[in-house]
Amino acid sequence: MIPEHMSEYAIGVDLGGTNLRAAAIDHAGTLLEKISAPTNYREGREAVLGDIVSAIDQLRAKYGTEGLSGIGVGVPGFIRVNEGVITNSNNLPYLENVPVRDELTRRLGARVILENDANAAALGEKWMGAGRDVEDLVLLTLGTGVGGGIISSGRVLRGHVGMAGEFGHTTVVPTGNPCGCGNQGCLEKHASATAVTAMARLMQLGENLTAQQVCELAREQSEAGEKARTIWRVFGEALGLTLATLINVFNFPLYLLSGGVLPAWEFFAPHMERVAQQRSFTYRATLAETRIAPAALGNAAGLFGAAYLPWLEAAR
Amino acid sequence: MIPEHMSEYAIGVDLGGTNLRAAAIDHAGTLLEKISAPTNYREGREAVLGDIVSAIDQLRAKYGTEGLSGIGVGVPGFIRVNEGVITNSNNLPYLENVPVRDELTRRLGARVILENDANAAALGEKWMGAGRDVEDLVLLTLGTGVGGGIISSGRVLRGHVGMAGEFGHTTVVPTGNPCGCGNQGCLEKHASATAVTAMARLMQLGENLTAQQVCELAREQSEAGEKARTIWRVFGEALGLTLATLINVFNFPLYLLSGGVLPAWEFFAPHMERVAQQRSFTYRATLAETRIAPAALGNAAGLFGAAYLPWLEAAR
Repeated sequence: MIPEHMSEYAIGVDLGGTNLRAAAIDHAGTLLEKISAPTNYREGREAVLGDIVSAIDQLRAKYGTEGLSGIGVGVPGFIRVNEGVITNSNNLPYLENVPVRDELTRRLGARVILENDANAAALGEKWMGAGRDVEDLVLLTLGTGVGGGIISSGRVLRGHVGMAGEFGHTTVVPTGNPCGCGNQGCLEKHASATAVTAMARLMQLGENLTAQQVCELAREQSEAGEKARTIWRVFGEALGLTLATLINVFNFPLYLLSGGVLPAWEFFAPHMERVAQQRSFTYRATLAETRIAPAALGNAAGLFGAAYLPWLEAAR
Repeated sequence: MIPEHMSEYAIGVDLGGTNLRAAAIDHAGTLLEKISAPTNYREGREAVLGDIVSAIDQLRAKYGTEGLSGIGVGVPGFIRVNEGVITNSNNLPYLENVPVRDELTRRLGARVILENDANAAALGEKWMGAGRDVEDLVLLTLGTGVGGGIISSGRVLRGHVGMAGEFGHTTVVPTGNPCGCGNQGCLEKHASATAVTAMARLMQLGENLTAQQVCELAREQSEAGEKARTIWRVFGEALGLTLATLINVFNFPLYLLSGGVLPAWEFFAPHMERVAQQRSFTYRATLAETRIAPAALGNAAGLFGAAYLPWLEAAR
């Protein structure tokens, strides 16, 4: 059992695309403090490991070692959690196949748990976010790419070697455009921020519009607005197909979406809902018991999930 | 803890499409006895319940009540396992939304566990079949339709209301032919025994060829043989797409296929493999750790899984 007193807290770290964030969070889920630092991935392994250690040290110096339950670190990449090794990371190739967990544990003199960042975000949403009332959920992170996390019976479903939840490369258009992963017509080519920018370019709306800009455009009553709304329709329909598949596969009560595209919810969600209902009789049969909803914690989800890992492991 | 002595056994029942089978199986997985009786579903609720009870009674009379650990019953339909209620069954509509488990428990004076038949088959394969060495697997049952079962951490992943594993109605051809489920281009329209018969009809090979007959035809060096091989190619490609999705989603070590189409393995499996590899980088990255393989127990899988349920529940 976990003794619950005020001083007990955990540290969660989220190694994101542009910065490293770390937070001290107590067992009740109160965020005590959050720190953030830019990370220059190009500086290599030593710099990144040093940044992680120093962020944790900063929080530990303030909140003490006595009440520190553990440390969780969310990393963009595939993790073999039992071994504490990153097997593949596009952003951090120099951390691949080295004993990152053990190295951090050694430098900090405290046990560290590594976790995939989308898995950590899913766990964070389950603990303190939109999934608080359920034991099973799927999270899709719609960002540069499309990632995902699966929480089953309150725990992360990681798969055999930590590669579960790779929803971005499931097929939604079997004869669609080729994807860097070797497949074609991947969800990621239709329902990511990157895909929105690419579609806006194809529709001659602009060279490098952000998803946010295409969202604002969609509010306009103009030809450009019409084109922007078409982009969000395609986005929603692709997402609806994958969600229909996931609902048929899992029959979970909750499917969460997160990422910078959420402000466009009003434009893509109706299409997503329509296609998900049309393509999944499981969804139609369980409408009152199945929700597709925005995630609640924004980019803090990964911090909460990472911090929760030590407690989850202790309760095993 | 379960005392393991010779006399300990469980009874598994599998309520199939054309007959009811029941077996006494000991804790080591030895099939002590199997009985089978034709079931006329048209006779209604009383007849079916009576058949189940009498099959169980027959085995119990022979092997005794002393060593009987429990009784599991696999049923074609969606089951709310905690309530012991069948919410939907095409074959047994008169058993829907009545307290089947409690009624059987009352009549037998012994606790009964209900389970979906494909889930029971997946569990059987995990216990004594092709999945003995893993804790996580997916089973696809390729029969009249396409069903499925998911074993995660050694347990059945049932979903919120017992509808998980509905792989047959995942989309493989987004603009494909309509399906009775409301979707179009479902896996079931391409990779079931029924689909093989329908494709053989479309290819003018015959009106009502069985999958077995289309398999034999595929061995011929003739125009008909060519057409039959095309059917198995389409079958394999559809299956490959869904398997790629499942591998991306679960990253499990094992994906099993069962059903009367298995004799055509040599004709569909190469296409299935090719498409699964092409569409799933997870599969390509884990070829040494991921297997797509035939199930091992044939139509006995459901009996083994049903019998295993009481022990699994006791170990909870």
